[in-house]
Amino acid sequence: MLEELKEIVYQQNLELPKRGLIKYTWGNVSQVDREKQLFVIKPSGVDYDQMTAADMVVCDFDGNVVEGHYRPSSDMPTHAKLYKYFEEIGGIVHTHSPWAVVWSQAGKDVPALGTTHADTFYGAVPCARFLTQEELDTGYEAETGTVIVETFKDRQLNPVEVPGILLQGHGPFTWGKDAEDAVMHAVVLEEVCKMNFFTRQLNPESPDLPQHILDKHYQRKHGKNAYYGQN
Amino acid sequence: MLEELKEIVYQQNLELPKRGLIKYTWGNVSQVDREKQLFVIKPSGVDYDQMTAADMVVCDFDGNVVEGHYRPSSDMPTHAKLYKYFEEIGGIVHTHSPWAVVWSQAGKDVPALGTTHADTFYGAVPCARFLTQEELDTGYEAETGTVIVETFKDRQLNPVEVPGILLQGHGPFTWGKDAEDAVMHAVVLEEVCKMNFFTRQLNPESPDLPQHILDKHYQRKHGKNAYYGQN
Amino acid sequence: MLEELKEIVYQQNLELPKRGLIKYTWGNVSQVDREKQLFVIKPSGVDYDQMTAADMVVCDFDGNVVEGHYRPSSDMPTHAKLYKYFEEIGGIVHTHSPWAVVWSQAGKDVPALGTTHADTFYGAVPCARFLTQEELDTGYEAETGTVIVETFKDRQLNPVEVPGILLQGHGPFTWGKDAEDAVMHAVVLEEVCKMNFFTRQLNPESPDLPQHILDKHYQRKHGKNAYYGQN
Amino acid sequence: MLEELKEIVYQQNLELPKRGLIKYTWGNVSQVDREKQLFVIKPSGVDYDQMTAADMVVCDFDGNVVEGHYRPSSDMPTHAKLYKYFEEIGGIVHTHSPWAVVWSQAGKDVPALGTTHADTFYGAVPCARFLTQEELDTGYEAETGTVIVETFKDRQLNPVEVPGILLQGHGPFTWGKDAEDAVMHAVVLEEVCKMNFFTRQLNPESPDLPQHILDKHYQRKHGKNAYYGQN
Repeated sequence: MLEELKEIVYQQNLELPKRGLIKYTWGNVSQVDREKQLFVIKPSGVDYDQMTAADMVVCDFDGNVVEGHYRPSSDMPTHAKLYKYFEEIGGIVHTHSPWAVVWSQAGKDVPALGTTHADTFYGAVPCARFLTQEELDTGYEAETGTVIVETFKDRQLNPVEVPGILLQGHGPFTWGKDAEDAVMHAVVLEEVCKMNFFTRQLNPESPDLPQHILDKHYQRKHGKNAYYGQN
Repeated sequence: MLEELKEIVYQQNLELPKRGLIKYTWGNVSQVDREKQLFVIKPSGVDYDQMTAADMVVCDFDGNVVEGHYRPSSDMPTHAKLYKYFEEIGGIVHTHSPWAVVWSQAGKDVPALGTTHADTFYGAVPCARFLTQEELDTGYEAETGTVIVETFKDRQLNPVEVPGILLQGHGPFTWGKDAEDAVMHAVVLEEVCKMNFFTRQLNPESPDLPQHILDKHYQRKHGKNAYYGQN
Repeated sequence: MLEELKEIVYQQNLELPKRGLIKYTWGNVSQVDREKQLFVIKPSGVDYDQMTAADMVVCDFDGNVVEGHYRPSSDMPTHAKLYKYFEEIGGIVHTHSPWAVVWSQAGKDVPALGTTHADTFYGAVPCARFLTQEELDTGYEAETGTVIVETFKDRQLNPVEVPGILLQGHGPFTWGKDAEDAVMHAVVLEEVCKMNFFTRQLNPESPDLPQHILDKHYQRKHGKNAYYGQN
Repeated sequence: MLEELKEIVYQQNLELPKRGLIKYTWGNVSQVDREKQLFVIKPSGVDYDQMTAADMVVCDFDGNVVEGHYRPSSDMPTHAKLYKYFEEIGGIVHTHSPWAVVWSQAGKDVPALGTTHADTFYGAVPCARFLTQEELDTGYEAETGTVIVETFKDRQLNPVEVPGILLQGHGPFTWGKDAEDAVMHAVVLEEVCKMNFFTRQLNPESPDLPQHILDKHYQRKHGKNAYYGQN
């Protein structure tokens, strides 16, 4: 089932090492079929060299495996939660890309310091809190999803406008309209984390991008008056 | 029209990812035909893998599209302004190369700390101010060009001697006698931004290159007594 | 003798430059045959381009060469000591990978700041002290092994749970159930050293990973309740 | 003349971009024929893609071109001086490799913080002073050689034991028994400059390598009791 989607998810998982976002199997990509309420995700810990599209695993939004000869990524329940609660997203990526991990380990939101950021993220990318012992006992990966949803709610953020988050002490999750879009957001977030780190080292007083320029750049690429690209 | 120029501009756009200056479509290169008062530039947001020389767009110095089946780069009006006011330049490059972005986001001029800098830029590379709300309303990209020209005028800089600038919160523009030259200047600026960042971290008191050595290195490569290379 | 093991050790030595851990011949990998109480290691200072599996050297746990037409790696006596005293390990790697060297030269333990660390190392990776003049006189490389063993004993660390160490002023040793596992640990340690450096620069107060999350991540991948991967 | 030497020098120049030490034509390698008192060096500013072994230029120790259809590297007179005064060296390399430039621009000697350093450089690598206006007027490149020789004399350093130097505000020169050896020393110096920068950032109090370990590592690879490698 969902053969076409498996092929897409397989290809987008291969993008992670190709774009320098992961080593070994330290990441996972999924994409959803909103009509069937199912998503396809990478299997857990399988070598990229040996993995095929047929090895992808089909799951539902409650975190059950619907089809697959392998176990899904151990982070699958996080993806399930996000598809359930962020109804407009179509693809999800998790990595341990180094610069996003640096900000995650430092426990800091990624400020919007420049237009590279503003072209994709409409404001700072939040860093979610550590999970509690109780949440770990309930179910680490599903509760991670819950904490992400809670963070967006608490901060009144729109997951379409801010398509990503950091998990303290862990790393980034990004999402988008499909898996390819989510991978691109993972690349942008990694680049922004790198550039913002050095910016703040060079000038600890470097200002956030002024609101009017943030608005301009985000709207140049997104929304009804967008004029970037060919569409 | 301008088929030869389209081929050159196409090839030089491909140099940007090849030289590690951009990811995805985050940059653009143009070259001018001074006789015809037209320039050729990359189309907006088209995948490098699928782009051909025939997809390049021809524009005039007032920012009108003269020929092309695609929209030009959204930064096209900036290029138009620069060709109009910097009459000696032949090619322009814009990127989001990370180290130049770091200095842009920090809002700092790039000091001339070494001979790598002095071989190409005769003195510090300026960082232009943020645009105002009013300028955004007038036309973001064209006004960006105006601010670049204004910065060179205010600081009494010669765009031939200092072939590049940073835009605060955004990234670098470089230029040269043609597109290839402008790309090389983008590479030099990126390398200099990286080396100068670490130099100042290693020794916050590291001095600017003494004026007599700056003069020597710049003149070794440029002007009537140049003796570097084979010409 | 041990032809199969030689092939494995040869292949894993080639992984070092491929994974960006070494330049030239600045590293070595070995793997043990516990039944025969012998291990196979790379020869000293032989170009990777010209090296073959047949050039690998067979040694015993007292640091004697048992077979080989080349001298073994000059660090061979360190490997011998580790196989002798860490009875559960099957493969060893030594490199001068830059980020691990940075922490070694700084003389600092690598703290467990994130889950990338916790997936492999159950707690901080220790940095062992400089050797004394007396130890150098006794035998530099063998005494290096002794100091590693002593460090684990003094700190009551389990070499299976913390499969690596830094040597002050020098670089990392890692180990694992076989050579491939030890190489993976060398990659993880290098990545963690890089990310932790920048984390502490970004936020000097960035906390250690809370104990309950360290436990969770380590146990998700190791031990009897592990559920990562397909086994 | 010297066809074999031209081939060697050509090949070693190609190593510079391959090993990530230079961009474009920002470096040069030479090797000497001590019997004939001549050396072969790269031509100035010729594209590496188009350069052939036959394009190499033959010069003497007074900086005269003896044979060649191209102008030699503009740094040729520096090489000439070094061959003249450092009688034991056989090959020379100059680059603008970024980490060595960082230390050069900061005007700082590179301390011996670790064994990677001690395996090649017996003590700190000095940073020579800026040239004066008078020296520039006398002849920039030849006087650069004079300042290098002066620095080694003043500090009582042996160019065989410390096969390299930094020029303030410029970059590194390294040398060795032949061009290949000099290239390897350029790679080591670049790596050491990178690692030492981050070491001092991580721990501003990180100590120099103790003298007895510096001695041990240098002598393990050099001199009559060396036991590293196969010779």
